[in-house]
Amino acid sequence: MLASTIRRMTPSDILPFRRPSSAHGHAHEQPRSGNGTGIVMMNLGGPATLDEVEPFLLRLFADKEIIQLPWQSVLGKFIATRRAPKVRKLYAGIGGGSPILTWTTAQGEAMCTRLDELSPDTAPHKFYVSFRYAPPFADDALQAMKADGITRAVAFTQYPQWSCSTTGSSLNDLWRALDRTGLQDAFTWSIIDRWGEHEGFVHAMASAIDNGLEQYPERERDDVLVLFSAHSLPLKVIDRGDAYPSEIAASVSRVVQAAELRNPHMLSFQSSVGPVRWLGPSTETMIKQLAARGQKNVLVVPIAFTSDHIETLSEIDIEYGELAHSLGMTGFRRAPSLNARAEFLDALADIVNRHLASGRPHSSQYKQNCPGCTNAACRGLPSRMAQTAACEVSAESAARH
Amino acid sequence: MLASTIRRMTPSDILPFRRPSSAHGHAHEQPRSGNGTGIVMMNLGGPATLDEVEPFLLRLFADKEIIQLPWQSVLGKFIATRRAPKVRKLYAGIGGGSPILTWTTAQGEAMCTRLDELSPDTAPHKFYVSFRYAPPFADDALQAMKADGITRAVAFTQYPQWSCSTTGSSLNDLWRALDRTGLQDAFTWSIIDRWGEHEGFVHAMASAIDNGLEQYPERERDDVLVLFSAHSLPLKVIDRGDAYPSEIAASVSRVVQAAELRNPHMLSFQSSVGPVRWLGPSTETMIKQLAARGQKNVLVVPIAFTSDHIETLSEIDIEYGELAHSLGMTGFRRAPSLNARAEFLDALADIVNRHLASGRPHSSQYKQNCPGCTNAACRGLPSRMAQTAACEVSAESAARH
Repeated sequence: MLASTIRRMTPSDILPFRRPSSAHGHAHEQPRSGNGTGIVMMNLGGPATLDEVEPFLLRLFADKEIIQLPWQSVLGKFIATRRAPKVRKLYAGIGGGSPILTWTTAQGEAMCTRLDELSPDTAPHKFYVSFRYAPPFADDALQAMKADGITRAVAFTQYPQWSCSTTGSSLNDLWRALDRTGLQDAFTWSIIDRWGEHEGFVHAMASAIDNGLEQYPERERDDVLVLFSAHSLPLKVIDRGDAYPSEIAASVSRVVQAAELRNPHMLSFQSSVGPVRWLGPSTETMIKQLAARGQKNVLVVPIAFTSDHIETLSEIDIEYGELAHSLGMTGFRRAPSLNARAEFLDALADIVNRHLASGRPHSSQYKQNCPGCTNAACRGLPSRMAQTAACEVSAESAARH
Repeated sequence: MLASTIRRMTPSDILPFRRPSSAHGHAHEQPRSGNGTGIVMMNLGGPATLDEVEPFLLRLFADKEIIQLPWQSVLGKFIATRRAPKVRKLYAGIGGGSPILTWTTAQGEAMCTRLDELSPDTAPHKFYVSFRYAPPFADDALQAMKADGITRAVAFTQYPQWSCSTTGSSLNDLWRALDRTGLQDAFTWSIIDRWGEHEGFVHAMASAIDNGLEQYPERERDDVLVLFSAHSLPLKVIDRGDAYPSEIAASVSRVVQAAELRNPHMLSFQSSVGPVRWLGPSTETMIKQLAARGQKNVLVVPIAFTSDHIETLSEIDIEYGELAHSLGMTGFRRAPSLNARAEFLDALADIVNRHLASGRPHSSQYKQNCPGCTNAACRGLPSRMAQTAACEVSAESAARH
């Protein structure tokens, strides 16, 4: 399953890690005062095998917080079933499944090892994977955390930048899972809801861009156009006030500065589907336009997702790669995903450490629903929060200093 | 004409300045080696009197680089003439004309005084106002610069963030004016094409937000929602790859950090007109939505324009102000525009000083046309550039360090 991923990695990406025996990390069992800290790592998830593709799509198209369809239970099922064969082929093309669980597990293990050192008062730290559309689910994470005797929990989004479609949907589902499992009062919560400008994350991205540029012969390196690409969103989500486009652009700005980037750079949005209008400019269209004007060297940098997944390994590397080459773009490359890059593992631990030390329940942005919000569940809080006082300083601001 | 502006200013906004006898600054005549440096300050411009409103609109609706209409020479004239009475009323409501020339003149004078100190080698520094839709025009600036014996010229956009609709149109017009005036070979040029992340500008904006928050009683200050607002653009411009939304968001991110802002903040876009779809979320809609959910205190921060003009004094202060109050929003306020704030005058001088010291002809972004560019004139260069070598480091990056 990892063959295609490993083939694409540079040596600095690879951290030696033991594959855990389960999807939850139990490697840090040293007894301490208190029961330690459970860190729920929330992400989209992906089908680990080809058989899991259809159930993954069925869950995705049933999520009203990311896709709204008329007669959703019927139409969503119809679309998911119809798309499954095509999507199965895409996963077959990247080794037979998504590597996201493997990467998240590696990240969680390394993060907890670092946190036990950085923050002995809150140790032991354990991580629990909570995917939205593939196992392990939020319910699994909560039950495993309960079984481990954890009472202090951090909901840690693995999407650096906020969107109601990603982190919002994952948090809403986590709070619903508390009800589904009857564990409403089992944990005291705090939330890391965004970290797209965290200096460690920014530094890791800058370092990945350096590796990307090193793929070009030195004499061509100055001619490389750096194309940051993020997953797009329907315009109706943007018009409601979703912070995503601003937070993506803020990440790009920080990374350009940290990388001391001399190359021209642009930002585009990929993976739009369906008939509604999405936020542009489109990555695919941009590649066509850049090729048409004779741009030979383009380095794509995925800025909104930290692990390899279908949008990097298939959409960028295969689909856009073939398109670019067919149009004469000889130097189409991608910066490596962060995966288990050491700087990124340090960043994950630093984000959690600063969050725990701050005593803040969430960022100052979290409780601000989009002005055009249409979902009563949004920006909810579980019954037991680590601190109920208003947050004095935004977590983003704290994370920068 | 300035009554309404001055009424709105805080004391720190006001720099004592002598009103110049003409629109061009001739205050810095000390003889030096060389002929000094001419700084062309490019902006939209605005009608100084009510009689100038219709000619201003006629020029705006004739600019194919900002507005594309079928049968533009006929339809543009028709729309401009029809809108004139309404727009005249708006200018009547803010004191009878736009204060932009007064502010630009104050900024230019203070900038040149500072530059003569900072950079004696390039002194004397003289500024020349070049407005797009109101006098003085690019042709006026070039002729005045020629008359002063200037040979080294800097095209300095007064829009902090790049857009082809603003800075792009102004530069294209400046290069055309070189042809119109026969002064193609009179000057050696360099270009300051964007500076939305310059630390002095960012610091000045942060300081203006502090003053904005000081307008609220201390006990309410934490409840203020900071709403950054920028002029919107049609989506077709965004889809071509215009960097504007990213650069606006980058400015916001830097200002939030510099202000150590504890308040929640959002970004929206104002002033969309006509039937095509514009970039959202809309400032006006957001105000309605925030009022509907009981938000009492909103501080609007204009992030894309540095001097007071119709969109701050009329659209935000009067139009949105009346809307907000009618919906029960008791604490609707605006952060003061930068105008002649001392930190901003320092920033303007620092931007030019660093640019001159860098020896770079323009930023590394300037020569990258939007991938979907439809205008052959875009990103042009005059025949004589200060340096033709590729720029080694982007001006933005240099400006930050």
